[in-house]
Amino acid sequence: MAGGIFVSFEGIEGCGKSTQLSLLAQELQRRGVKVVTTREPGGTPLGEEIRALLLNPAFSPTPWAELFLLEAARAQLVATVIRPALEEGAWVLADRFSDSSLAYQAGGRGLPWAQVRALNRMATGGLVPHRTLVLTLPVSQALTRARNRASTQASNRRFEDEAEAFHRRVARAFQRLATQEPQRVRLVDGRGSTSQVHARVLKELSELLP
Amino acid sequence: MAGGIFVSFEGIEGCGKSTQLSLLAQELQRRGVKVVTTREPGGTPLGEEIRALLLNPAFSPTPWAELFLLEAARAQLVATVIRPALEEGAWVLADRFSDSSLAYQAGGRGLPWAQVRALNRMATGGLVPHRTLVLTLPVSQALTRARNRASTQASNRRFEDEAEAFHRRVARAFQRLATQEPQRVRLVDGRGSTSQVHARVLKELSELLP
Ligand SMILES: Nc1ncnc2c1ncn2[C@@H]1O[C@H](COP(=O)(O)OP(=O)(O)O)[C@@H](O)[C@H]1O
Ligand SMILES: Nc1ncnc2c1ncn2[C@@H]1O[C@H](COP(=O)(O)OP(=O)(O)O)[C@@H](O)[C@H]1O
Ligand SMILES: [Mg+2]
Ligand SMILES: [Mg+2]
Repeated sequence: MAGGIFVSFEGIEGCGKSTQLSLLAQELQRRGVKVVTTREPGGTPLGEEIRALLLNPAFSPTPWAELFLLEAARAQLVATVIRPALEEGAWVLADRFSDSSLAYQAGGRGLPWAQVRALNRMATGGLVPHRTLVLTLPVSQALTRARNRASTQASNRRFEDEAEAFHRRVARAFQRLATQEPQRVRLVDGRGSTSQVHARVLKELSELLP
Repeated sequence: MAGGIFVSFEGIEGCGKSTQLSLLAQELQRRGVKVVTTREPGGTPLGEEIRALLLNPAFSPTPWAELFLLEAARAQLVATVIRPALEEGAWVLADRFSDSSLAYQAGGRGLPWAQVRALNRMATGGLVPHRTLVLTLPVSQALTRARNRASTQASNRRFEDEAEAFHRRVARAFQRLATQEPQRVRLVDGRGSTSQVHARVLKELSELLP
C-alpha cells in the first residue's frame, strides 16, 4: 500500500455515509490529494450488476447467497480498483467495506461471525482500512432519511424495507466492532447538520490528514 | 433427504452433461419417478442472473469473484430447489454442482482446494450428491462440440474461450475427485453415440434405480 490511505465509511441505511464521503473527498482534493471513491456493493462494472441484484426486492437471496454476492463484488473491487489506487498513493474513500458484511450478514442475518470474517479475508486478500468511520444515528431517524431520499426506489429498496429490529441488530454489530478494534473503527455522531458531522469526521482522521 | 436421490453430472464443456441428463430424466419419468432437473450456475431466478454475469466475456471476474458468484447461485439453488425436491422424495438431476468449483476454480484457476471445499460446504449446508457422474472426453473433442453447439453465443462463451491448457487442468481435477471418492464420483466414458453413453450412465446408477 505504498503511501495510499484507505478510509471506509460504515453505518446503517441513511446515517449519512455517502454525504460525508463526498464532503471528505472535496476537502481532500482541495488539499491537493489524489482521491478515489468507491461504493459497495458496486464500484466496478461487474459489481454494479451485482448491486442491482442485491438491492432489488424482486430477488430474495438466502443469507448465504447474499453474503457470497457481496464478497464477489468486494473481491472484484479490491483487485481492480482499491489496491491499484493505494499502490499509486491515492486516498481511497469507500462507501461501505468488509465491516458491512459483519454487521449485516452476521449481525443482521445471523450468519456465524467467524465465517463472515473468513470470507472477508478471502475477498480482500487481508486488506483492512487504515480507519473506519461508523456514523451513528437513531435507527428510526436514519431509516426515515433513507426511505425519503430520491435515490431510494422500488427497484433498490430491499434493505430499506427491512424491519427496524433488523437495523438495530446491524447497528449493534457496528458498535461491537468499534469496541473490538478501537484504534481502527471510530464511532462518529451522525446527528446535526452535515457540516457539523463533517467536522467530526475530520477530527477522527486528524493524524492521517495532509 | 427423505427418499430423494441426488445425482450430479460433471465434466468439461461439451462432454455431454446436458444431453445425458435429459436422457436420464426421460428414462426416470418413463419409470414413474418424479424428477427435478437443475443447472449451475442458474436454476433459480437469482441464479440465472448470476449465470449471465459469469458466462459473459464482457466481465472479467477475478478467480475469487468468480468463485463467490458460483457459490451464491449454489446457495440459492440448494435452499430453494434441491432440498425441497429431495424432501418431497424426487430425484434431483443437477447439471454441475459443487465439484465443478473444485475442478474449475481450484483446478483450473489455482485457488486453494481446501478453501473452495470450505465455501462449497457453506453454500450447500453440507449437501453432497448420492452419485456424481463425470463424463470424460478428450479435451479437444469436447471443446469442438461445445464451441459449435447452437447455444454457445458471443454473450455466454467465456469458459468455452479459455485455452485448452485450462480445460486440461479442469479435467485432471475431476479425475482426482474420482480417485479421492470412488464410491460417489464415477468416471463415465463420454465417447460414442448418445445412446451408448446413456447405457453407461444407467449402469453407474444401477443400485439406485427403481
Ligand atoms: N446531517 C444531515 N442532516 C439531514 N439530512 C442528512 C444529513 N446527512 C445526510 N442527509 C440526508 O439523509 C439522506 C441519507 O443520507 P446518505 O448520505 O444517503 O446516507 P447513507 O449513504 O448512509 O445511506 C440523504 O437524503 C441525505 O441528503
Ligand atoms: N455422444 C455424442 N456424440 C456427438 N455429439 C454429442 C454427443 N453428446 C452430446 N453431443 C453434442 O455435443 C454438444 C455438447 O453436448 P452438451 O450435452 O451440451 O455438453 P455439456 O452440457 O457437457 O457442455 C451438443 O451440441 C450435443 O448435442
Ligand atoms: Mg449511501
Ligand atoms: Mg450443458
